[in-house]
Amino acid sequence: MQSYRIAMLGTGLIGDFYTMTLHGQRGRDTVRIVYSRSEERGRAFGERWGIPESTTDIKTAIEHPDGDVVVIGLPNFLHEEAIAAAAAAGKPVLCTKPLGRNAEEARRMLETVERAGVFAGYLEDLCYTPKSLKAVRAVQGGAIGEVTWVRSRETHPGPHSAWFWDGRLTGGGAIVDLGCHCIEIIRNFVGKGNRPVEVMCHTDTLVHPIADEDNAIALIRFESGAIGQFEVSWTFRGGMDLRDEVAGTHGTIWMNHFLRTGFEMFTAGGGGGYVAEKAETEAGWLFPVGDEVSELGYVDMFTDMFRALDEGRAPQETFYDGYVVNAIMDAAYRSAKSRAWEPVELFEWRGGSTPRITAQPELLDGQVVIKREILPDGRQKLILKDPATGDFVDRVIAG
Amino acid sequence: MQSYRIAMLGTGLIGDFYTMTLHGQRGRDTVRIVYSRSEERGRAFGERWGIPESTTDIKTAIEHPDGDVVVIGLPNFLHEEAIAAAAAAGKPVLCTKPLGRNAEEARRMLETVERAGVFAGYLEDLCYTPKSLKAVRAVQGGAIGEVTWVRSRETHPGPHSAWFWDGRLTGGGAIVDLGCHCIEIIRNFVGKGNRPVEVMCHTDTLVHPIADEDNAIALIRFESGAIGQFEVSWTFRGGMDLRDEVAGTHGTIWMNHFLRTGFEMFTAGGGGGYVAEKAETEAGWLFPVGDEVSELGYVDMFTDMFRALDEGRAPQETFYDGYVVNAIMDAAYRSAKSRAWEPVELFEWRGGSTPRITAQPELLDGQVVIKREILPDGRQKLILKDPATGDFVDRVIAG
Amino acid sequence: MQSYRIAMLGTGLIGDFYTMTLHGQRGRDTVRIVYSRSEERGRAFGERWGIPESTTDIKTAIEHPDGDVVVIGLPNFLHEEAIAAAAAAGKPVLCTKPLGRNAEEARRMLETVERAGVFAGYLEDLCYTPKSLKAVRAVQGGAIGEVTWVRSRETHPGPHSAWFWDGRLTGGGAIVDLGCHCIEIIRNFVGKGNRPVEVMCHTDTLVHPIADEDNAIALIRFESGAIGQFEVSWTFRGGMDLRDEVAGTHGTIWMNHFLRTGFEMFTAGGGGGYVAEKAETEAGWLFPVGDEVSELGYVDMFTDMFRALDEGRAPQETFYDGYVVNAIMDAAYRSAKSRAWEPVELFEWRGGSTPRITAQPELLDGQVVIKREILPDGRQKLILKDPATGDFVDRVIAG
Amino acid sequence: MQSYRIAMLGTGLIGDFYTMTLHGQRGRDTVRIVYSRSEERGRAFGERWGIPESTTDIKTAIEHPDGDVVVIGLPNFLHEEAIAAAAAAGKPVLCTKPLGRNAEEARRMLETVERAGVFAGYLEDLCYTPKSLKAVRAVQGGAIGEVTWVRSRETHPGPHSAWFWDGRLTGGGAIVDLGCHCIEIIRNFVGKGNRPVEVMCHTDTLVHPIADEDNAIALIRFESGAIGQFEVSWTFRGGMDLRDEVAGTHGTIWMNHFLRTGFEMFTAGGGGGYVAEKAETEAGWLFPVGDEVSELGYVDMFTDMFRALDEGRAPQETFYDGYVVNAIMDAAYRSAKSRAWEPVELFEWRGGSTPRITAQPELLDGQVVIKREILPDGRQKLILKDPATGDFVDRVIAG
Repeated sequence: MQSYRIAMLGTGLIGDFYTMTLHGQRGRDTVRIVYSRSEERGRAFGERWGIPESTTDIKTAIEHPDGDVVVIGLPNFLHEEAIAAAAAAGKPVLCTKPLGRNAEEARRMLETVERAGVFAGYLEDLCYTPKSLKAVRAVQGGAIGEVTWVRSRETHPGPHSAWFWDGRLTGGGAIVDLGCHCIEIIRNFVGKGNRPVEVMCHTDTLVHPIADEDNAIALIRFESGAIGQFEVSWTFRGGMDLRDEVAGTHGTIWMNHFLRTGFEMFTAGGGGGYVAEKAETEAGWLFPVGDEVSELGYVDMFTDMFRALDEGRAPQETFYDGYVVNAIMDAAYRSAKSRAWEPVELFEWRGGSTPRITAQPELLDGQVVIKREILPDGRQKLILKDPATGDFVDRVIAG
Repeated sequence: MQSYRIAMLGTGLIGDFYTMTLHGQRGRDTVRIVYSRSEERGRAFGERWGIPESTTDIKTAIEHPDGDVVVIGLPNFLHEEAIAAAAAAGKPVLCTKPLGRNAEEARRMLETVERAGVFAGYLEDLCYTPKSLKAVRAVQGGAIGEVTWVRSRETHPGPHSAWFWDGRLTGGGAIVDLGCHCIEIIRNFVGKGNRPVEVMCHTDTLVHPIADEDNAIALIRFESGAIGQFEVSWTFRGGMDLRDEVAGTHGTIWMNHFLRTGFEMFTAGGGGGYVAEKAETEAGWLFPVGDEVSELGYVDMFTDMFRALDEGRAPQETFYDGYVVNAIMDAAYRSAKSRAWEPVELFEWRGGSTPRITAQPELLDGQVVIKREILPDGRQKLILKDPATGDFVDRVIAG
Repeated sequence: MQSYRIAMLGTGLIGDFYTMTLHGQRGRDTVRIVYSRSEERGRAFGERWGIPESTTDIKTAIEHPDGDVVVIGLPNFLHEEAIAAAAAAGKPVLCTKPLGRNAEEARRMLETVERAGVFAGYLEDLCYTPKSLKAVRAVQGGAIGEVTWVRSRETHPGPHSAWFWDGRLTGGGAIVDLGCHCIEIIRNFVGKGNRPVEVMCHTDTLVHPIADEDNAIALIRFESGAIGQFEVSWTFRGGMDLRDEVAGTHGTIWMNHFLRTGFEMFTAGGGGGYVAEKAETEAGWLFPVGDEVSELGYVDMFTDMFRALDEGRAPQETFYDGYVVNAIMDAAYRSAKSRAWEPVELFEWRGGSTPRITAQPELLDGQVVIKREILPDGRQKLILKDPATGDFVDRVIAG
Repeated sequence: MQSYRIAMLGTGLIGDFYTMTLHGQRGRDTVRIVYSRSEERGRAFGERWGIPESTTDIKTAIEHPDGDVVVIGLPNFLHEEAIAAAAAAGKPVLCTKPLGRNAEEARRMLETVERAGVFAGYLEDLCYTPKSLKAVRAVQGGAIGEVTWVRSRETHPGPHSAWFWDGRLTGGGAIVDLGCHCIEIIRNFVGKGNRPVEVMCHTDTLVHPIADEDNAIALIRFESGAIGQFEVSWTFRGGMDLRDEVAGTHGTIWMNHFLRTGFEMFTAGGGGGYVAEKAETEAGWLFPVGDEVSELGYVDMFTDMFRALDEGRAPQETFYDGYVVNAIMDAAYRSAKSRAWEPVELFEWRGGSTPRITAQPELLDGQVVIKREILPDGRQKLILKDPATGDFVDRVIAG
């Protein structure tokens, strides 16, 4: 297992989270140089994390001879340029979410790295939360049968930095900020080979005086018939609500990544310090998480990225995934305008074909069994349908 | 406060729940006569609940000289006839949900009781759960600001009786069975005077070999801009999932009515007896509710109905409400077919007009304040928007 | 089923809760006259609840010709006198918890009502919460095997009325106020026929400048070997913590009656109104309960009391139970002083004898089976003990 | 930051957890050689984890020239010998919990490493769970005021390996296995400088046919007046219950480390695979944890140990802590026999002196303020005590 030296581009909240992860615990990888548009922020960041060098020249960072890997933690509108420079330098590049401001931009980035033949990873942390990884494995192992529905929700009172609020720089509002997480979580559960067919989306700007949506709900229909549902908002009150629910033909999964993780604190005030990302209060009942960078997936994400580099394989989350996410978001924005289901337009589908969710009707004496229930006395109650007449009857049989 | 003697029509699960409620605790009201289509079931029901008389003639029950109130717990396709008979007899009538199989049928029932001038109550129990009643009061008191979004979810593995599965008798599938609850819960939170404008709905039949939907998700847009979202399913695994979430501009409400109410039991098996409606297992971790008829709203529902009768006022849930619910469900079914937003068609709107959710932009030195955050050092971080250029900037000021 | 007219003695918080219950929902029983030591409070109480008459003469209330039942909601030091007067009047009497300030006083009250032959009920609401009633039935049905341990916890920031804080009037501090609940909950789970043998208790006065304990933890050993553990405090921060946990040889029960019942609200402040008994905050995350008088057991408690009266049977909670509770509290106070296990002294034991919790050792080839585990491959791993040498070994066998 | 090569002694469950942690994520430290008493288990372990060498000779492992650190994951009765050998080899040594079978043994180990001057860490993982670390920091920052009570609970259906059940090899039963965790968790919350004064303990053997306790409850009184309460059991049903509760004068902390961490799964059976340590079922509702080695503290534990080595400082958990834990367990065993409070006997106290929990009485007009409550109308209700008479009164004042 190799150790990697990182060129970190960007010194915002996400740069902090990334570096905290890389430099945390017994990590073998270190940030070698940090790039910031502001000399002051770059220097402060470097001091905060013990990074040998900081620069305001992005090429200096990317092409640094001691840098093995470029990590992009910049605002959305700067991704394409940074990726192009990393590809030109022949360096592996890991880019934060969303990949592009729209699918066209994302496609260009995808083509850039593929043309250059550099390793490219899509830093979608929330697909790597330990709960999600374990849940996806359980789903793949058949624990809940076939997935019929996934709800992914990310809502909070709004982002911390000014650029997030400017749709010209980001590509949109809450969808581009938060929906990208939800979409890729959903894809991991319904299966990445399960083609997203179309999207229905409703958006609104309810609270903030901005041009872009601060609320959105969307349905994504996949080839198998499974539905992905995302709910994103910059108007949620009470902290950061980060929950996923998965329904299958034989089971159910509920995950809460933030506000209810088994850690509850009441304080009359004072002394609590930093509780959690986007906490709204400092007194009363608070709900911290344990190790944020672990529970939000950063630890497992970088592990997968660097192991993939070591092993010469693709990481779990690739630029193609980032591109698909952008394509789904584009469809969502089109749908919000047209107020109709809009197809997900992909220049190329790299997944396979996924069969329709199966419902194998069971027969009993020529009748279709709709349901079986165990009665308190041990007998079974059946609900049967006559295939000829379409009539339904109850029948009780020995258990 | 008067005592009422009830003519109970129907001996299914809902008849049991209604009678358990009426005869429970220190109730002053009693079932005087029960009607069943089957003599055997009628007699068994009567014995089970200590009811003096049972009959297979619906008129005998409705017109019984000792009966003060008619309660309809019959399958959907029998509501209209029963209501007509009760109205003809001049008796107050309480009808289970949904009122009709569609809005047209519901409208006829509404007109029947209004023409006859009889008291009519819509037995929508889930709008009366103690949690919902308290939450609605809190919302009305301003605790969460203006309501922006309500999610109401009712899912379980499918109904217990054969007729539920036959759309010809019910009017549809999971929407007509469960969505009616969700819609009226949503209306209570967004305000009953808040006109439902249009609906977008997706349905599918994923698991059961039936003609109607066993899964549905819908968005309802209200005049204020608030969105109601319902999720209903007959394919959920793990019991009965009954949850409501309400978002407002200044707060949040989460309610779990069934699977997570602070009552958790692990049993290696045996001896547990009846745990809860639609529980799927008898061993392992189980999640009973305390007093089902109280927690599901039956107790407060009948209290409101009879008090309304006493006081000569309308109950909280009226036939007009039932009609509106049917009209919304009709729009949902139309939308599922057209795959487009469909208007909610009402022959008459009895609510008023509800203003758009307000977002009062705050100004500072001519800039629009997008967000305020308290920094750890006590200073405030503002995100500001320049109304002229549309640019966003961060600014830190003294706390 | 008869209707009862109540003489309510006392107008404090508990009088409100009792009357809210009696006059709530479709109750058939009504408060006919209320007694208060203060004319003003009596009149206000009467107006609040629509009670025809109020008085400052306790005899007038008790002996009122229209009063069927006397309900005592007075401070502890006034119970004995009120019970004596009710017994003298030959009236059924229901007395709030704790019965006496100590066992000797409780024993005199028990003997008073038994000598007079009047019906007497011990108003221990928390043994009647719907969750507890269902859980006790599950335990009695064998769902968790034999009960080994019960933890009952009631803690909050301290009582609302001055007299509670004066040990001379109450008999003690947090134990007498809250421990009485816990003890009787424990007895319901371990079985009321299961003799409490001895008590070990630790008390302290940690926060409030009072002479009595504001914190206590105690262990009660029952004849079967089961342990009851109570934790009571007047120093808890965050509201009212009301939880019970029951462990059995084949299962586990966890109940949360107050702060986590599936009702969660975040409010930025304002408009919430009354949230719950002993809530500490009005903003931030709040945890209301639905119908307090139902969830805290008042509804089922009065139902049992009046049904018992109707049926000429003893209620679930009797004065003898109240006496046993006092005797256990006396032992707890003695233990806190002696710092040793103290016997529970009962002038008479009306339960039977309860056998020791059984542990039937299973044998395999002359070895004692300590544990069986299913391995991932379906085989079984056994841990065996050689009865001769006392040595333990692992053995894996086919599943 | 250095990389360490480990000599791992022991190949049981704890050896797997340790190695999974060390070899997990981007860890820089690796196991170089593993010692097992069984050649077969040693070889299998080595293959499982990609360890270059395995041996059945403990000295070979300890003295291996490439080994930087010795990690002891052996049964309790083998700790002393292994520590002596590591000390003789002058190697840093990390030893699993409990340190000794009793305080005398633990003291000898402590003296051995101190005499040899080798670095020694006590591998008490549950003091390092991310939740605990954050909670302890919050407590140290004053978030809950002064700690008054800590409850630590660890219960499950019993250990997986035969030797755990043999008190001759372990030093006892559930206390020695599980209580050691709870005690050190408690010490971290009340403050390690807060001297444990005495212990009251109740033990019983309720379910398993063994000589040692399978259930225990104990109270530990600290110098400040704080009480630590531990509950340990090998008879719990439902998985592994791992919870801590902390009460302070100004706040409350509740932590659930295992069965309720925001990850809930229902499965009709099949396909779930490994869910969690000590899960009891494979169908129905299951409650996995995300990343067990992170959530159970192993990751942060080794990070602290190796950083301490790097920095030449003592780790958070030292052999002296292990010794204190053993001394408290000894007192617990003595108390269970004597049925009285037993002093904690320490050959040397290395903490300081901790003042009694303070209760600063507030005065108002010469009266002691017992409690303040805000009334719904904004006024304040005070409960006051007259210091002369000891009488209590209510007084309402402007807010």
